[in-house]
Amino acid sequence: MKVMVPGSFDPPTNGHLDIIKRAASLFDYVYVVVAQNSLKKPLFTTQERVELLKECLGEFSNVYVDSTSDLVASYAREHNIGVIVRGVRNSSDYDYESELASANKLLNYNLDFVFLPSSEEYRIVRSSLVRELIQHNVNVSQFVPITISEAIRNKQQ
Amino acid sequence: MKVMVPGSFDPPTNGHLDIIKRAASLFDYVYVVVAQNSLKKPLFTTQERVELLKECLGEFSNVYVDSTSDLVASYAREHNIGVIVRGVRNSSDYDYESELASANKLLNYNLDFVFLPSSEEYRIVRSSLVRELIQHNVNVSQFVPITISEAIRNKQQ
Amino acid sequence: MKVMVPGSFDPPTNGHLDIIKRAASLFDYVYVVVAQNSLKKPLFTTQERVELLKECLGEFSNVYVDSTSDLVASYAREHNIGVIVRGVRNSSDYDYESELASANKLLNYNLDFVFLPSSEEYRIVRSSLVRELIQHNVNVSQFVPITISEAIRNKQQ
Amino acid sequence: MKVMVPGSFDPPTNGHLDIIKRAASLFDYVYVVVAQNSLKKPLFTTQERVELLKECLGEFSNVYVDSTSDLVASYAREHNIGVIVRGVRNSSDYDYESELASANKLLNYNLDFVFLPSSEEYRIVRSSLVRELIQHNVNVSQFVPITISEAIRNKQQ
Amino acid sequence: MKVMVPGSFDPPTNGHLDIIKRAASLFDYVYVVVAQNSLKKPLFTTQERVELLKECLGEFSNVYVDSTSDLVASYAREHNIGVIVRGVRNSSDYDYESELASANKLLNYNLDFVFLPSSEEYRIVRSSLVRELIQHNVNVSQFVPITISEAIRNKQQ
Amino acid sequence: MKVMVPGSFDPPTNGHLDIIKRAASLFDYVYVVVAQNSLKKPLFTTQERVELLKECLGEFSNVYVDSTSDLVASYAREHNIGVIVRGVRNSSDYDYESELASANKLLNYNLDFVFLPSSEEYRIVRSSLVRELIQHNVNVSQFVPITISEAIRNKQQ
Repeated sequence: MKVMVPGSFDPPTNGHLDIIKRAASLFDYVYVVVAQNSLKKPLFTTQERVELLKECLGEFSNVYVDSTSDLVASYAREHNIGVIVRGVRNSSDYDYESELASANKLLNYNLDFVFLPSSEEYRIVRSSLVRELIQHNVNVSQFVPITISEAIRNKQQ
Repeated sequence: MKVMVPGSFDPPTNGHLDIIKRAASLFDYVYVVVAQNSLKKPLFTTQERVELLKECLGEFSNVYVDSTSDLVASYAREHNIGVIVRGVRNSSDYDYESELASANKLLNYNLDFVFLPSSEEYRIVRSSLVRELIQHNVNVSQFVPITISEAIRNKQQ
Repeated sequence: MKVMVPGSFDPPTNGHLDIIKRAASLFDYVYVVVAQNSLKKPLFTTQERVELLKECLGEFSNVYVDSTSDLVASYAREHNIGVIVRGVRNSSDYDYESELASANKLLNYNLDFVFLPSSEEYRIVRSSLVRELIQHNVNVSQFVPITISEAIRNKQQ
Repeated sequence: MKVMVPGSFDPPTNGHLDIIKRAASLFDYVYVVVAQNSLKKPLFTTQERVELLKECLGEFSNVYVDSTSDLVASYAREHNIGVIVRGVRNSSDYDYESELASANKLLNYNLDFVFLPSSEEYRIVRSSLVRELIQHNVNVSQFVPITISEAIRNKQQ
Repeated sequence: MKVMVPGSFDPPTNGHLDIIKRAASLFDYVYVVVAQNSLKKPLFTTQERVELLKECLGEFSNVYVDSTSDLVASYAREHNIGVIVRGVRNSSDYDYESELASANKLLNYNLDFVFLPSSEEYRIVRSSLVRELIQHNVNVSQFVPITISEAIRNKQQ
Repeated sequence: MKVMVPGSFDPPTNGHLDIIKRAASLFDYVYVVVAQNSLKKPLFTTQERVELLKECLGEFSNVYVDSTSDLVASYAREHNIGVIVRGVRNSSDYDYESELASANKLLNYNLDFVFLPSSEEYRIVRSSLVRELIQHNVNVSQFVPITISEAIRNKQQ
């Protein structure tokens, strides 16, 4: 079974990596796909995020990192991917994700959605928190892998 | 990957079957396990529920139906099952399921949990609704497979 | 437009009456229907609840009080009622009520559902709270109409 | 009873139209009011949205389309409207809508609020989704009436 | 400031003790009060629960353990307690607790309510889970203090 | 016990003041801290908000008003504050606040969090509502203290 873990990953966090690694142990092949979002001003460019994810996930032979400016449902159709995997942190998250899932199913009837509940230790880690901490010059090494915290430090210099 | 879909299944509904069939297409092998609950007075006995599920799921060669009086986490450990699959219908459901998942992980660190959001057409189908309708002699054939509605009719005679 | 406000009303509270009165100003004709529930041991019998509601609502010429042992969807069909009105207090309530509404629509496609958000001052008034207070001999006159608090006092003697 | 269905309607969706049509069958007279919002950059101008709604709702003799730069509570007072009708899709929506309703009641004590739970088939349709799909050149004809999808196509040329 | 931590405590869990200890560091004096509930069949009698809590909390000189068959609001009034402290685990919990708080304020206008969000490590620990595990002969020592797990073992023999 | 009530307070509302006053009666010393947020265009400058809060809270000898561009967790550490007090209005609010609390605890292990449920009469009062009403020239004197409504009037001239 080929699955897709789409996201902004700006930056990738330990929470993202936990979801990706669990997906990689559950399914045969995992596409991690950075969704370009023209509206937001990102911390890292799409290409940088792809490189960072590749570095963090190098040891997983069944994980492939890519990016797209397409809709998730379109990317899945083109790559013959039948399942989207998403992490869910709390009930507000769930409402949002289940609505998105239903909308995507209308666009691509062959898609199924799998939600992985966040591991307790990563439940509160999200990219927007990491970006806010960076803005206040707070050390974020407990929220992101070392590759990422070094990339952030380089960016700040 | 071997997964488990535990539940009361009293009676099995179209919603349950949707979750089980999606699990059967996502994973190699699916244990559907009727959890005995000594506290509730059931509509069908545990053994009847196992038989009904077997009839409904006969065409799926990778689905195995069983029952247990053990905890889900214990059954999984004994049968070397690494993943529990649960359907989730709304945000209240999510709160309940994610708490249960965290508790089970404390009992069996090797367990992972996968939530499948209910398909729109089965979002409101639950066994307690079916039982209430039966109590009012309402035809429930749109909520359960034909095998089940016949079993219910036999029971009522 | 003929609408129905179904409920247990055991006992009717100021919150119920607020919903019924708002329904009576919104719609032409309001059926207030006590749903018999064989499973619970009530404070007042179905007939007593009907009488109490009639006393409390006597001044409203477009309100009719009745009881039923049928499903709400069946009662509505038989009485040619097209709309069910329900009060909603918070988001948990909403999840429950919207699921019930969808289930009833499956049983009676012609039914529509209208939710009235509880008025701020009645948001926390519910029959189970009133029953618990009565059990502790607490004065409940701020939660129920005077007719009801007198009926409760008579019952307690 | 005169009611008001306020909204941004940018663009009007099948979900909006379902709510408006249900309101039109429940109440004598329905004002559909496009609320101008100076902060957002809209897909359609206020005047275009009014025209599109008029085209979609022409067959309903008791529906009147208008726009306002006033608060909803002020518009209602000026037009002697006693009830605001809003569609609600899920529990997060409910929290938001009930807070808005309470705030509006503080501004206009004579207002009542009626929530219509989204029909299952329109539960996930929202304008922001439609706008995002348009941005990706995805066909949105299953989410909006044909009048709207044509207007969108003209806009894109 | 004198505060009260009411509860069923059947049995007291590590989650309860975390809330009580945090209350004891925040406030001058903490009443821990076992609320008798005539409806439920408890694991431990009220008196046993009081004794177990006393053993677990002996080191805290500003914690006093008691029991009551009164309403929480009444106990607080009689003992001149101005604040109720409650642990909250998730958003469903919050809805329930805030409704209870509002109801109690109607009964005792001088009461204030303080909610402590569960510590991450105790978020899923609740007495009903512990009782269910006990029923399945599962070791619960990671969820309750050692005094309690020994009392449970004695009970089971 | 020294506590902190952080917030944007743009403008301070009756809801904020209710939380601050309750905190001032619960704890020995209350820091009310205006958090500067470089991203938003405020109605009042940080310094103006500090002055307005000082005027509104002058009678409370145990309340100290300050501002910071630091993270809440950092400000607390520097000022030896062990507890953050936050008002919570509904379950969506709770999800947001509890996540923020957990994140702050990761940054400062000595912090505890106390949530005060909004008083019923202030449950729907929030600064964004007040700002929107001001934009529509609506009188906001029922939502903010007189000091604030006068400051708003001066600003508008």
